[in-house]
Amino acid sequence: MVSLDATSVIFGSGIIALVWALIQYSLVAKIPVQSNSGVGESAGLVSGSDNEATTRRLIEIYEAIYEGAESFLRAEYTICAYFVVVFGAIIFALVSWGTGWDMQRGLFTALSFVLGAVTSIVSGYLGMKVAVFSNVRTTVSAQKPGFTACFNTAFRAGAVMGFALCGLGIIMLYATMLVFRSYYPNPEDWIYLTECITGYGLGGSSIAMFGRVGGGIYTKAADVGADLVGKVVHGIPEDDPRNPATIADNVGDNVGDVAGMGSDLFGSFAESTCAALVIGSSIGATGGWDAMVWPLILSATGIIVCLLCSFIATDIFTVKKEADVETALKVQLISTTALMIPATYGAAVWFLPAEFYLKQTVGTGTLTLNPWQAWVCVIMGAVGGLVIGLITEYYTSHSYQPVREVANSCKTGAATNMIYGIALGYKSAIIPVIVLALVVYGSFTLCDMYGVALAAIGFLTNLATGLTIDVYGPVCDNAGGIAEMAELDPSVREKTDALDAAGNTTAAIGKGFAIGSAALVSLALFGAFVTRIRHSSGDTVFQNGVNMLEPITFAFLIIGGMIPFAFAAMTMKSVGLAAMEMVMEVQRQFDEKPHLLDANPTERPDYDACIAISTKASLKEMVPPGAMVMLTPLLTGIIFGVSAVSGLLVGSLVASVQLAISMSNSGGAWDNAKKYIEKASPDSELKGKGSDIHKAAVVGDTVGDPFKDTSGPALNIVMKLMAVLSLVFADTFYAINDGTGLLALS
Amino acid sequence: MVSLDATSVIFGSGIIALVWALIQYSLVAKIPVQSNSGVGESAGLVSGSDNEATTRRLIEIYEAIYEGAESFLRAEYTICAYFVVVFGAIIFALVSWGTGWDMQRGLFTALSFVLGAVTSIVSGYLGMKVAVFSNVRTTVSAQKPGFTACFNTAFRAGAVMGFALCGLGIIMLYATMLVFRSYYPNPEDWIYLTECITGYGLGGSSIAMFGRVGGGIYTKAADVGADLVGKVVHGIPEDDPRNPATIADNVGDNVGDVAGMGSDLFGSFAESTCAALVIGSSIGATGGWDAMVWPLILSATGIIVCLLCSFIATDIFTVKKEADVETALKVQLISTTALMIPATYGAAVWFLPAEFYLKQTVGTGTLTLNPWQAWVCVIMGAVGGLVIGLITEYYTSHSYQPVREVANSCKTGAATNMIYGIALGYKSAIIPVIVLALVVYGSFTLCDMYGVALAAIGFLTNLATGLTIDVYGPVCDNAGGIAEMAELDPSVREKTDALDAAGNTTAAIGKGFAIGSAALVSLALFGAFVTRIRHSSGDTVFQNGVNMLEPITFAFLIIGGMIPFAFAAMTMKSVGLAAMEMVMEVQRQFDEKPHLLDANPTERPDYDACIAISTKASLKEMVPPGAMVMLTPLLTGIIFGVSAVSGLLVGSLVASVQLAISMSNSGGAWDNAKKYIEKASPDSELKGKGSDIHKAAVVGDTVGDPFKDTSGPALNIVMKLMAVLSLVFADTFYAINDGTGLLALS
Repeated sequence: MVSLDATSVIFGSGIIALVWALIQYSLVAKIPVQSNSGVGESAGLVSGSDNEATTRRLIEIYEAIYEGAESFLRAEYTICAYFVVVFGAIIFALVSWGTGWDMQRGLFTALSFVLGAVTSIVSGYLGMKVAVFSNVRTTVSAQKPGFTACFNTAFRAGAVMGFALCGLGIIMLYATMLVFRSYYPNPEDWIYLTECITGYGLGGSSIAMFGRVGGGIYTKAADVGADLVGKVVHGIPEDDPRNPATIADNVGDNVGDVAGMGSDLFGSFAESTCAALVIGSSIGATGGWDAMVWPLILSATGIIVCLLCSFIATDIFTVKKEADVETALKVQLISTTALMIPATYGAAVWFLPAEFYLKQTVGTGTLTLNPWQAWVCVIMGAVGGLVIGLITEYYTSHSYQPVREVANSCKTGAATNMIYGIALGYKSAIIPVIVLALVVYGSFTLCDMYGVALAAIGFLTNLATGLTIDVYGPVCDNAGGIAEMAELDPSVREKTDALDAAGNTTAAIGKGFAIGSAALVSLALFGAFVTRIRHSSGDTVFQNGVNMLEPITFAFLIIGGMIPFAFAAMTMKSVGLAAMEMVMEVQRQFDEKPHLLDANPTERPDYDACIAISTKASLKEMVPPGAMVMLTPLLTGIIFGVSAVSGLLVGSLVASVQLAISMSNSGGAWDNAKKYIEKASPDSELKGKGSDIHKAAVVGDTVGDPFKDTSGPALNIVMKLMAVLSLVFADTFYAINDGTGLLALS
Repeated sequence: MVSLDATSVIFGSGIIALVWALIQYSLVAKIPVQSNSGVGESAGLVSGSDNEATTRRLIEIYEAIYEGAESFLRAEYTICAYFVVVFGAIIFALVSWGTGWDMQRGLFTALSFVLGAVTSIVSGYLGMKVAVFSNVRTTVSAQKPGFTACFNTAFRAGAVMGFALCGLGIIMLYATMLVFRSYYPNPEDWIYLTECITGYGLGGSSIAMFGRVGGGIYTKAADVGADLVGKVVHGIPEDDPRNPATIADNVGDNVGDVAGMGSDLFGSFAESTCAALVIGSSIGATGGWDAMVWPLILSATGIIVCLLCSFIATDIFTVKKEADVETALKVQLISTTALMIPATYGAAVWFLPAEFYLKQTVGTGTLTLNPWQAWVCVIMGAVGGLVIGLITEYYTSHSYQPVREVANSCKTGAATNMIYGIALGYKSAIIPVIVLALVVYGSFTLCDMYGVALAAIGFLTNLATGLTIDVYGPVCDNAGGIAEMAELDPSVREKTDALDAAGNTTAAIGKGFAIGSAALVSLALFGAFVTRIRHSSGDTVFQNGVNMLEPITFAFLIIGGMIPFAFAAMTMKSVGLAAMEMVMEVQRQFDEKPHLLDANPTERPDYDACIAISTKASLKEMVPPGAMVMLTPLLTGIIFGVSAVSGLLVGSLVASVQLAISMSNSGGAWDNAKKYIEKASPDSELKGKGSDIHKAAVVGDTVGDPFKDTSGPALNIVMKLMAVLSLVFADTFYAINDGTGLLALS
């Protein structure tokens, strides 16, 4: 009876999410792709005469972007498919071997891995399709008077992605668990069940790695390349149709900022759930199935709360003017978090037993927990996430001092802009790190490592809303690009720019969320790793915790700290390399087609050549960093053993958090400092667009592109992926010389 | 009898070092400050007619630099003096209280602190004086034909600083120990003796902090300011006498790159010795005094080896042409390390008992060690340091691929230059970190934490040579500046530029050494901290090591990781702020004195105004980062206890190493990429000086200035200072609720 409750809540919420996504989709789909969709209204913004030609142009651009994105994702996912097959086989072999040829566990782990990977691929692909589909419709809606129509279109596009991903993720994960349960009916064996399920997290996360890195390199190579030539060399505006790199740039938004980010957050969701399940697997023995799957119930609750709140932006406080946009998005986020407090409390008292028992991660005791403690951990995560998000906003929005200081520093040139921007990024890590430390300390003290996992899930309860807002940004960005390329009335572009500016700020908030949750997820996964090793070793390893003063642990602690730097170096350089190629190509086209830059150009740029450069570069360059992140823990565990892996994971976590926060925020601040200068009038101190000050700001923005959209956010995945991979292979590592690794043989 | 040996070796080498410094000094002093010192020789480079005027100008410049440097150091050291008095009192009070009102230990610790601080101040001051004294003499020698004279002058200036500092340091430290021994005659109590001596390290290091940060901000504010206006805005060459910021720039080299760096390395020497003494204090009980003070014997051996090798550059392979310079310096460094291998072996078998006993840092056992093991640890450090140095050279010299790639990236503008440079820095951390990990693992496994301390000392055995080469660089740089300002024949400047270019590369090597040694020193100090706490708690705390999975430890692990980022942010922004002020001031002078930039200017710039800006800015801005680094461990220990401090120290160490290496190397690479472009001819691909490519490179160089000379190297001190401070207050922290901190009261 109680068991039915958990299942019905989880499946129910998943189905509701999918239905809701479908409803939102149909609302967006109703908008016809045609110029002057306001026909019949009094204030159509495009004059009747060029209506048809513009409509044709709109469709042309839409199709070009769609084809570019589709062909890139197909190429990317083909590589991923090979990877999934090969790595699935490796998982099957290594896990079976590590568990003393328990082929069932090997198979189940490999199976969940494939399922996780497929879900991630589907999410990314779906997200891209919805985004491309909605971009042009947002442009069309922006032709209507007022902000309501276009805001709602972009927001609904986000909601389609947000709810579809959450629904799909939770249904797939839970269904897999139910299937596995029929093979592990005994609650004592649920630790094996949860262990097999971690494959799901690994699958989601590895695709996210390739998606984030590949998509990130794609989008930023195009963006940086387009900026360098278009803006710096020739002084033509962003997204000008005469710039051959524009289509690639717009494709990039969809494959990087939408598909990549979707996979990333899906990975976070899957991993945090897996971590909580592994650590809490001992709860099932006394508390029953519902208590054990409580982390999933939390996510289900989150979906419902997000859905209830999603009316706020579109129907309760409808967006009527520019200033409403940022408010609407922020109110949305804050109210979701606020409503989450009572909702998760309800979930706790309803589904958790009044007392439940948990084995300590360190020490030999068993903790007695109650729903209230678990709930506090969740809330610490949710509120901590919000605080980190708002701090991120403070450091990256040009409404506040820090970004304005960066803008001012452009007066003395690009060099001071760089110094100020990097300093801002480094400084912006202070408060988020302290908040994270508080959340870790509080949740850890209350509920051991299980508390940390719950806090991570707390961070992610408003995932659907977060994703909605995250997708909203690139959709508006793209809508503006399409308006520019289709040469619609400038007022349309102004409107989408206003929508996009708010999106930039909320995207920064979303990144803060993602990084914070990734840190907690990694720590929780590390806790799960320790739990597994203790279980497998019969409490002989890690019983007194993980000693930093073990030589091998300390050595790998500093090596772990180096990984994010190496990763950032690789991805940044890939962007730089590809961007330089892009610049050469664009330059070549300008040289070969001298009339390309005329006011009424008689020649058309070769967009496909630029798309090909981005595609080739990103597919080639995503492999080495991905391989490094996956092979490092695997080889460390096999050769040097579990103490080395512990050092590696913690070192990487400590350095990744700081670097991810500072890179994302430096990038966001440079972008908005540039926007702030662009808004200044030519007579003001900052001189406005086209001045030397603006040029200095553009340098910062260009450097910030790979910071904030390639390396920074991918560092989230670095820490999570290394941790979840170690967790999946924990028994394998332990099987080699009792966890001391191959090296101990000699 | 044996005891006399240690004492005689240590004092003997110290005195020899001081005498040798004096000899070198007298050789430099023999060179008269006059233009065309080559009178009588056939090839004087300044024509006879303007001889007297130029001599007067040389003396004028010399005096201006001297006065600027003197007045800055006086102001800086006055602040330091107040600090020493106040903090000395705090040490006395807290240590006395923490040891159950053992006033003797409080007093001795405070006393060593004051002695360490005074020695550091004297070293810095002396270094500055010698450098200023020698700069102008190097310029004068550069008028002579050939490279031998000017190279030898600059090299000897470095030797004065290198040997004086080593001699002074070792004599002061050992004399203090002998005095304390008369109060602690019982070998069982030598642990208290060594603990009091750690005050010496803390004193040296705190002054180094202020010296590095204050000097670093001073020199880079002037340098960046001068570059921005002079080069970027007005296109006049570096060190042009018409630029009002030039004197400040030259003063900065002496107070930042010489005095600051001298204090820094003195701090490393003092701290590594203290760490080894504390960890090895248990050796004394069975092995006797000589075995316990073996770390000092090592340093004494190092001095003698450096002295023997110092003839190589000046007398054996004399520098005859430009290409010889870099070879001479590198041969010097490599041969010192090579000779160190047999020399330290001798020191090991001669002074260490065939077997000696050491309490384990973790676990309850006692290790039996032999001289051979100790020697291997030392050698691992020495060779590891050399490898790290050579890797650093690979990443920062324009003879190799990485810097050339950065130079090439300037073709597409400042933005790609920034992306490539930052990526290079991050990437350059990979091998040094792996080398460090190997050294830590190897030495730790062989001799427990004592091995790590010995490896750190091994890094620093060639301190005298390292310092010589480090000081050599800024001396040549300044000599060039003086030649430019005194308007000597351009060939003089070309010669000093050639000397300086080699100095840049070797300075990078020196920085690699400094960072690597700092990492090992911090780890050793952390080991000493754990040793102390175990001793004070009667083995109830940390007996099973330091558990990362303690909530408070993990929380502070990520907070510790944030400290270096916050520190870098503060110092970089200080430089940016002061540089912007400097630009405004220079611009004001150019505006108010329109004839300042004429070919034969009729007006003189106001140098003092620029000096005042640098002085004021650096004194004001050095306080907050210094306070942060010192107060964080102090408050953490008092409020949250020793587990929190452990996390803090390790987190800071892990992040500092990476950030220090990458910032130093990014900066070095940008500087040399710029130099590489400057050397290119206007017809080549890189277009050479004055081109857009060069301008893009200058942006990188300017950003790199605070990276490589302010924030990067100061991060060394961050990790060391936090660790040594925690060690000094270890008993105090433990005294508060058995090390659980004030918070545990509530």
